[in-house]
Amino acid sequence: MPIATPKPPLPRVVIIGAGFGGLSAAKALSRAPFSVTVVDRHNYHLFQPLLYQVATAGLSPADIAAPIRGILRGPNCSVHLAKVTGVDPKEQTVTTERGALRYDYLIVATGARHAYFGHDEWESAAPGLKKIDDATTIRRRILIAFERAETEIDEAERKRLLTFVIVGGGATGVEMAGAIAELAKKALAADFRSIDPRDAQIVLVEAGPRLLPAFAPSLSDYAKKALETLGVEVVLSRAVTECDGLGVVLGDSRLESRTVVWAAGVRASPAGKWLGAETDRAGRVVVNSDLSVPGFPNVFVIGDTASVADENGNPLPGVAAVAKQQGQYVAKLLQLRERGVSSPPFRYRDYGSMATIGRSRAVAEIWGLRLTGLIAWVLWSVAHVYFLIGFRNRLVVALSWAWSYLTFERGTRLITGAEGATEPPAPSKMRDAA
Amino acid sequence: MPIATPKPPLPRVVIIGAGFGGLSAAKALSRAPFSVTVVDRHNYHLFQPLLYQVATAGLSPADIAAPIRGILRGPNCSVHLAKVTGVDPKEQTVTTERGALRYDYLIVATGARHAYFGHDEWESAAPGLKKIDDATTIRRRILIAFERAETEIDEAERKRLLTFVIVGGGATGVEMAGAIAELAKKALAADFRSIDPRDAQIVLVEAGPRLLPAFAPSLSDYAKKALETLGVEVVLSRAVTECDGLGVVLGDSRLESRTVVWAAGVRASPAGKWLGAETDRAGRVVVNSDLSVPGFPNVFVIGDTASVADENGNPLPGVAAVAKQQGQYVAKLLQLRERGVSSPPFRYRDYGSMATIGRSRAVAEIWGLRLTGLIAWVLWSVAHVYFLIGFRNRLVVALSWAWSYLTFERGTRLITGAEGATEPPAPSKMRDAA
Repeated sequence: MPIATPKPPLPRVVIIGAGFGGLSAAKALSRAPFSVTVVDRHNYHLFQPLLYQVATAGLSPADIAAPIRGILRGPNCSVHLAKVTGVDPKEQTVTTERGALRYDYLIVATGARHAYFGHDEWESAAPGLKKIDDATTIRRRILIAFERAETEIDEAERKRLLTFVIVGGGATGVEMAGAIAELAKKALAADFRSIDPRDAQIVLVEAGPRLLPAFAPSLSDYAKKALETLGVEVVLSRAVTECDGLGVVLGDSRLESRTVVWAAGVRASPAGKWLGAETDRAGRVVVNSDLSVPGFPNVFVIGDTASVADENGNPLPGVAAVAKQQGQYVAKLLQLRERGVSSPPFRYRDYGSMATIGRSRAVAEIWGLRLTGLIAWVLWSVAHVYFLIGFRNRLVVALSWAWSYLTFERGTRLITGAEGATEPPAPSKMRDAA
Repeated sequence: MPIATPKPPLPRVVIIGAGFGGLSAAKALSRAPFSVTVVDRHNYHLFQPLLYQVATAGLSPADIAAPIRGILRGPNCSVHLAKVTGVDPKEQTVTTERGALRYDYLIVATGARHAYFGHDEWESAAPGLKKIDDATTIRRRILIAFERAETEIDEAERKRLLTFVIVGGGATGVEMAGAIAELAKKALAADFRSIDPRDAQIVLVEAGPRLLPAFAPSLSDYAKKALETLGVEVVLSRAVTECDGLGVVLGDSRLESRTVVWAAGVRASPAGKWLGAETDRAGRVVVNSDLSVPGFPNVFVIGDTASVADENGNPLPGVAAVAKQQGQYVAKLLQLRERGVSSPPFRYRDYGSMATIGRSRAVAEIWGLRLTGLIAWVLWSVAHVYFLIGFRNRLVVALSWAWSYLTFERGTRLITGAEGATEPPAPSKMRDAA
């Protein structure tokens, strides 16, 4: 009988963040000879592209989130629920609030937060949309604004309550504006007695000259017209210069509103600081062509946290497809490196992009085609349901959409989570409702 | 041409609370010549019997809650989202934090909260299950306990984290115990590396001599055996005498646990105080045989807030069916009274009761029959899906159950709502997970 030789320990890979990038790396590595630990502050992977539907009462949080442990069940994979407090690339250690993790390879995929161009004090007045709690906060504010308007006797305050401002004309801003318009003009239309939700004013403000700057100008024009058909006012080439609980200032004019949603700026997670690495203006780590951090060949940064340029020198967009491909690339690279083989530089394969505006209206650039209207919307819906994680979620989302499409209903318009929530501040005078 | 006579104003009915009682009254009155205003702190009706499934990650909050405005769309019906601060039965006014409401008839249907037998300080250690926020709090605590146990190196603390105590052996307690057992032993079984969730200890404590005291003793026995088969320890005839963040004391022995769920006591809303009316020990208003408050023939109290005896002098149970029938009764009574006709006393028609224990296990007393096992469970499932409000919710819940039944999965196990939540308190020592 041969004497058993002890197996060498597997190389330890720590992945920070279970977004699109971290999860795709973990899934690819879970089938390879590595010991993988995924660290995340949350116990679920969030399908961020549909977060705006939670914020506008179309879907439940659980419809677009799946427990990480349920996705990564391989025997070499473990999940560590904790907030990361720092990285020591020399000691090869990640510190968390719940203990330290040693690594042979580190993959940082910590994503991005919204940013306020140096005006962090605007955040409480104009929440952004990155996390589940952001989405339920925005949902609560939108629904409470209609409730307050119903009993408000002061004309100016009622108008303020029924005005919704979305700052930022990228995909998230366009999707939010369209969804709020549909909520007000269709789903809530019959719900109130003193107000008509269809009178709600929805304003989308973009500092640049057109909506959806990542798309072709013809699609920007389509998106603007489609939003205007839904009743959204689109304000272009105007930057927000002030923002508080009563509205926003656009240069020399003031727009009064109790509900402002921020979809304008993005700032990478503090991973650059942890690593002491060079970052770009948005805080993204400038990485080598193989996504490793200069000076630390066993540390990789991917997704919204990495600053990577395409072959023309333009920065890659902060979208799921980039993060996923980068995760898969690093997983492949590690397998090759363990065998002593080097990898070619990372290259992004752009399969296209899409944004939805509302019922039967979307734009898509895919396989070199520019599509608008129903066909783009069907493509968008199929793609988003397909990429949702977990069969159950796909089914629930598909059914929720079919139901909303047929009935114009929005099933999840619950005001939860803040017993006696005071945003927006209670108005001064109240109608006697009896 | 006849001269138009101005229509007399409709009698104003104010209904406080949109639970089963208030909503059934409002729905019945919305088709009658009354001006109805429903006041509630929340903008949704909650299907409380399924709240334990939200607490154990089986369903989403929106699956068991429907917006009140969506249910009450009649032209004579309005909804007032506000917390009631008092009632002045002499001035016929309800005061809310958002203005006052005058009424000709008042229906108080404000339900009940859990109670701690004079130990309100136990609430933070042992939350009860009455509201959506209660359910998501309990869900978060249960899921975090497993996460903490995964990285805990202290043996005693790990055992404490993996021990779940449910206090109270009524329907809610039995359902919670069964659902936590199924969560630990099936849905989470493959999720962890350092712990085996199947080792979790689930203890159901009941002060009385048997579980489900409202059911026949044979069904109590079945429930106990079925729970034990699921791995639940059932402790009878032992009252909790102390309760803190580290466990409960049962007479002379201590049971260490980080997660205690309270399902033992119920206390009516403060409606009795508002009305200055006589209440029973649980705070319920002692009403006349027509459910009106002694001294105020135009004020009615229904549901869990009313103390009503059946023909044998036994108090009616705090269940949905009683509240619904009382709501319909008062709606009928008001219509008769407007026509000058008096009503017979309220009588409860008991169609039966059911409680579920777990997959394919339930008890039911219905049409004089005592049922257990699969047939009771199918009956329970069909009845609960049927009574859920809104076609969409029925469909989503039915599909979620079918999915869970086939796969043993629990789709909504998300830890949300408390960024850096500290319950249960972070343990002292942590395992190095790498």
